[in-house]
Amino acid sequence: MEQSGGEPASVARSETLGSLGEAAVLARIFPRLPAAASALLGPGDDAAVLAAPDGRYVVTTDTMVHGPDFRLAWSTPFELGWKAAATNLSDIAAMGARPTGLVVAIVAPSETPAATLEGIADGLREACAELAPGTGVVGGDLSVSDTLVIAVTAFGDLEGRAPVLRSGARAGDIVAVSGALGLAAQGIALLFAHAVDADGHPDAGRVAALRHAHGAELAAQLTPRPPLADGVRAALAGATAMLDVSDGLALDARRLAAASGVLIDLDGVAIGIAGLALEGDHDEVGAEQVLRGGEDHALLATFPPGTELPGDFRPIGHVRAVDSPGVAGVLVDGVPYEARGGWDPYADWNGGSG
Amino acid sequence: MEQSGGEPASVARSETLGSLGEAAVLARIFPRLPAAASALLGPGDDAAVLAAPDGRYVVTTDTMVHGPDFRLAWSTPFELGWKAAATNLSDIAAMGARPTGLVVAIVAPSETPAATLEGIADGLREACAELAPGTGVVGGDLSVSDTLVIAVTAFGDLEGRAPVLRSGARAGDIVAVSGALGLAAQGIALLFAHAVDADGHPDAGRVAALRHAHGAELAAQLTPRPPLADGVRAALAGATAMLDVSDGLALDARRLAAASGVLIDLDGVAIGIAGLALEGDHDEVGAEQVLRGGEDHALLATFPPGTELPGDFRPIGHVRAVDSPGVAGVLVDGVPYEARGGWDPYADWNGGSG
Repeated sequence: MEQSGGEPASVARSETLGSLGEAAVLARIFPRLPAAASALLGPGDDAAVLAAPDGRYVVTTDTMVHGPDFRLAWSTPFELGWKAAATNLSDIAAMGARPTGLVVAIVAPSETPAATLEGIADGLREACAELAPGTGVVGGDLSVSDTLVIAVTAFGDLEGRAPVLRSGARAGDIVAVSGALGLAAQGIALLFAHAVDADGHPDAGRVAALRHAHGAELAAQLTPRPPLADGVRAALAGATAMLDVSDGLALDARRLAAASGVLIDLDGVAIGIAGLALEGDHDEVGAEQVLRGGEDHALLATFPPGTELPGDFRPIGHVRAVDSPGVAGVLVDGVPYEARGGWDPYADWNGGSG
Repeated sequence: MEQSGGEPASVARSETLGSLGEAAVLARIFPRLPAAASALLGPGDDAAVLAAPDGRYVVTTDTMVHGPDFRLAWSTPFELGWKAAATNLSDIAAMGARPTGLVVAIVAPSETPAATLEGIADGLREACAELAPGTGVVGGDLSVSDTLVIAVTAFGDLEGRAPVLRSGARAGDIVAVSGALGLAAQGIALLFAHAVDADGHPDAGRVAALRHAHGAELAAQLTPRPPLADGVRAALAGATAMLDVSDGLALDARRLAAASGVLIDLDGVAIGIAGLALEGDHDEVGAEQVLRGGEDHALLATFPPGTELPGDFRPIGHVRAVDSPGVAGVLVDGVPYEARGGWDPYADWNGGSG
């Protein structure tokens, strides 16, 4: 009898995707999703119709998979929705575009609580509202599998400007970044160090204390706040090249260098590694986390010499011509930096660590 | 020694996503993907840029999951790529739009042969070339999981026309369809009846004979050829409503009826069920397969009375006003047809049947 007061909540918890069915789940999710200001026709027909005022649109897609990309023991559904939106919108911003819309495909086990999808929808909505107001979800798809997968495709508007590519950096340009470096990597390192059980498996019970002690690091990992508005600001300020730092500063800088045919010379003091140990000790960011840690979702850009850097961009180095017959690449304080960095889902993921 | 001549092939077969890594896999796939005529900037940067000549673009997304949506024992990788493209492009056509591009996210086990992804890429390319020339892949993402998932987002161009919605059918309109009804459902029924082992599990060895004896049915299921060009033709001919028949004629007609607030009265002779048994016997299409079988990817449309039906559209009924205070719905020869039909991934999928 004492438990009867809790029954409605426990009944609600027992509602799964399988027990409700697709139509009922969609009916719960739709009202939670953000509307897109650019949607001429929203969800509900075979396809949506979006406005492209300047006759072009920007498109990117990125997927989050339970295991390699997130763990339900560590992330709330809200955080998953937030991160799925934020990371895709960051790729739009990195073109110098204004984010406008998303489509979201979710594959989930039949026994997934409906509340999990409601939480994901809430996270998508709040990320759009806080990071890129006016952006919304214009379509989606639900399917079933043993593993939760969130596949997002995001759209953006260049507002008449040329896209800012990776290939435009020129010798003499300023190298600048907006957003934190290494903090998200520190967050995941803390989770693997302190939020696992004796067998090394993710342990939800140990995350709360970690959130209290290391709020900034866990937020950077679980609910990243990429500086989306700085993408348009960089384009307006004349950025010559730009990308989203998702696979670690060194690897993404190397991509920009290769596309542009230049050297990127990073300033160890400016990126904050001058006084750091090479490897962090799980409680402090190390130089390797700054250079090689993934999921920063900072914006890395190059600007012509003398540019007044816009928004939160700060200078972290400069662009040099390749030495004849040299090869494009990354230097730190003038010394070639060739460690691979980044993360390969096939080479690097051990199923057991998910 | 006799086997030494086969070594290169067996070495090639041993190349998996895990052994090659993401970058090497992408390098193999990219050259196989079709370029999109509307891509102002293709794959390789943070995002692609597509042209939207009339200032709008059409967007839809649909996911295929190993188990509920396909089985590698029955489909070749080429067929998976083909179907992933064809089914998404059909949703674009159903808006009266011309398909222009796709982004493709693939989640695959680390031990997947690289050749599997090459086959998927080949299928995507050939489906675009044959069904919607000029359409291409403008971006993608690769990730890792235990279950193969192919998530596609497709784009289209309305070329200045209004989109053809589900909600525009009016009393007196002709109901018409382009494409086969029930054939894809017959294909999957044949596979479940004749291409399984003694335990009911999909058996690749039994598919070849079935392809020989029932080529049309298996092709409808494994490599559907939706009548994409008829989508634009329908719009030009003044279609008042249209949708892609993916969940069975009755359920999709009911969706169109509900959106339009009308009755859809189907002609039993015209849809070919007049002489059929209610249920097929695994070797012949039954009435229930015509009305409730999924994955037809036919186009269902309504046209004003007197319209000369375009392309391969054929009349299959007419639109009636709801009886006061009646409810929108579907009739067959004037008799309400209320069976649910369609397929719910959560309610209907038994993991064992995959």
